[in-house]
Amino acid sequence: MTNTKATVLGLGAMGAALATALVRAGHATTVWNRTPGKADALVDLGATAAATARDAVAAADVVIACLLDADSVHEVLDPVADVLTGRTLVNVTTTTPDQAKEIAGWAAAHGAVYLDGGIMAVPDMIGLPGASVLYSGSATAFERLRPLMDLWGESAYLGEDAGLASLYDLALLAGMYVMFAGFLHGAAMVADAGVTATEFARRSAPWLAAMTGGFAGFAAVVDGGDYTVPGQQSLVFSDLGDLLGASAAQGISTEVVGVVQDLIRRQVDAGHGEEGFARIYESIRQPA
Amino acid sequence: MTNTKATVLGLGAMGAALATALVRAGHATTVWNRTPGKADALVDLGATAAATARDAVAAADVVIACLLDADSVHEVLDPVADVLTGRTLVNVTTTTPDQAKEIAGWAAAHGAVYLDGGIMAVPDMIGLPGASVLYSGSATAFERLRPLMDLWGESAYLGEDAGLASLYDLALLAGMYVMFAGFLHGAAMVADAGVTATEFARRSAPWLAAMTGGFAGFAAVVDGGDYTVPGQQSLVFSDLGDLLGASAAQGISTEVVGVVQDLIRRQVDAGHGEEGFARIYESIRQPA
Ligand SMILES: NC(=O)c1ccc[n+]([C@@H]2O[C@H](COP(=O)([O-])OP(=O)(O)OC[C@H]3O[C@@H](n4cnc5c(N)ncnc54)[C@H](OP(=O)(O)O)[C@@H]3O)[C@@H](O)[C@H]2O)c1
Ligand SMILES: NC(=O)c1ccc[n+]([C@@H]2O[C@H](COP(=O)([O-])OP(=O)(O)OC[C@H]3O[C@@H](n4cnc5c(N)ncnc54)[C@H](OP(=O)(O)O)[C@@H]3O)[C@@H](O)[C@H]2O)c1
Repeated sequence: MTNTKATVLGLGAMGAALATALVRAGHATTVWNRTPGKADALVDLGATAAATARDAVAAADVVIACLLDADSVHEVLDPVADVLTGRTLVNVTTTTPDQAKEIAGWAAAHGAVYLDGGIMAVPDMIGLPGASVLYSGSATAFERLRPLMDLWGESAYLGEDAGLASLYDLALLAGMYVMFAGFLHGAAMVADAGVTATEFARRSAPWLAAMTGGFAGFAAVVDGGDYTVPGQQSLVFSDLGDLLGASAAQGISTEVVGVVQDLIRRQVDAGHGEEGFARIYESIRQPA
Repeated sequence: MTNTKATVLGLGAMGAALATALVRAGHATTVWNRTPGKADALVDLGATAAATARDAVAAADVVIACLLDADSVHEVLDPVADVLTGRTLVNVTTTTPDQAKEIAGWAAAHGAVYLDGGIMAVPDMIGLPGASVLYSGSATAFERLRPLMDLWGESAYLGEDAGLASLYDLALLAGMYVMFAGFLHGAAMVADAGVTATEFARRSAPWLAAMTGGFAGFAAVVDGGDYTVPGQQSLVFSDLGDLLGASAAQGISTEVVGVVQDLIRRQVDAGHGEEGFARIYESIRQPA
């Protein structure tokens, strides 16, 4: 594994970061990008630029695709499917779970081993602590290529179902976008009192980071399936009326917090008010 | 300040924790609770139990109220307002900003100095790293009592407006509840694929903690007021269609993520699609 031949298709911000990590670690790396010119910096580092996607795929047993979306993966690979036979395709392009499964089936039909990846990092983080990449699909390929992929970040294998990495990726992103909205809601609440968003971020970031410490407790209750275990903050105690009232008093939207109140209310209305806050999970699992 | 006389009214979970920290640090502490018996453990530690709220208030220049809500503060203090004259009331009972301002006005009318506090911790965290208490109201009282209050956690002073601590407290709680809902949404997404909430929490907690690192960047854009500064993830790139689609495919509610998509869409529809994600702040500031 000290010198694995690998090909990277797609040299956008992320593809270039992945390829750079491989070249820097001394792997014989072939690169290709639809629009020429993006390979130049990598060639300077020691990569080999391929003139066509066909040449690029033919150059290595391990083909890493980091393109825009599922459509672009098919656009690049469909015409060269014959060269892909017998090789391993590591597709770290962001797709939906269904698209990942579709591409996995397509790869299998052309005799290629398939590993799907979901990158939990921005390009600047590649190779640094904090970056992680989730994989699903071929367990054998994961084990074999792990030393290579560990150059990008912590590698985690989730299972044979090729759609798992995408699903997990989306689930983590859901938490992120929702948290961002919660932070910006808080910033909007204090704005009229003259508190800058920067000042609010300074307190809010460590506060929310600390509060992620509560996830394990909620998870234990959810997994246990008993929302009545003692020691939890109850749903009635979690009523967000004051929060909604204060938001409305500031003249800002109440929708971000209102959605959480709706989840709480549905459980309270169903008679579970004295059970733990984690029970809003049931509101999510069973849409209104 | 090595031995300040202080009174704590209300010995629920939080009041008892606050009083314990004072007694342990050697302050002459008088305690009172509506229902008798709750003072016993504190008396064993060295506190003095007062038989009535009147006696308790009369015993110290610094009166800390840690009761259930704004109503209970009035219920306890209205009959003893005359003894409060000339003393300092530190009210760490959770209230709305308007209630805090009302109590501050009431205290001023009775010649008492007023400091409002919002406790960002659970009782177990009092006195430990990670606990913080936000204050607003009298700056003089804050400076004078800071050494005492620092025994509970990091003390932060926000301004003379007595409602500020409550407002800030609610804004931080908004972020927390919304983040919890985002986490539970993610857990629901991966559940059908056989991933336990505990396993998801193990990855989600450090992921979201790391992503709080993005708040400062959003805040800088919000404070700068220019959502077109380069280097931001655009609103169109942030489209949550895939996330909503995958959630719907799992048969779970889309409302938690849908509210963020609504914030994004309103800005895209107004022609700001190429501007940064932080622009959803404007959707929150100007309700639909
Ligand atoms: N950037 C991040 O923070 C990040 C984080 C996690 C995951 N990802 C994922 O990583 C993948 C790449 O992201 P990126 O940031 O590198 O994007 P990017 O900078 O926009 O680059 C997109 C790449 O895809 C290529 N491409 C697009 N359509 C194509 C087509 N039809 N045929 C051939 N090539 C095509 C582009 O080639 P041209 O140069 O010819 O346009 C370019 O190489 C995406 O799926 C993204 O979701 C990115
Ligand atoms: N616990 C937390 O994690 C936490 C975190 C941040 C802020 N806080 C805030 O701290 C305050 C106290 O919380 P806690 O956890 O200590 O609550 P708690 O354990 O429920 O205790 C409530 C206290 O208020 C007293 N009380 C309630 N109604 C009263 C009335 N009408 N007259 C006189 N006393 C009355 C209770 O006295 P009895 O014993 O006679 O009922 C008890 O001492 C609340 O405002 C809470 O929001 C708590």
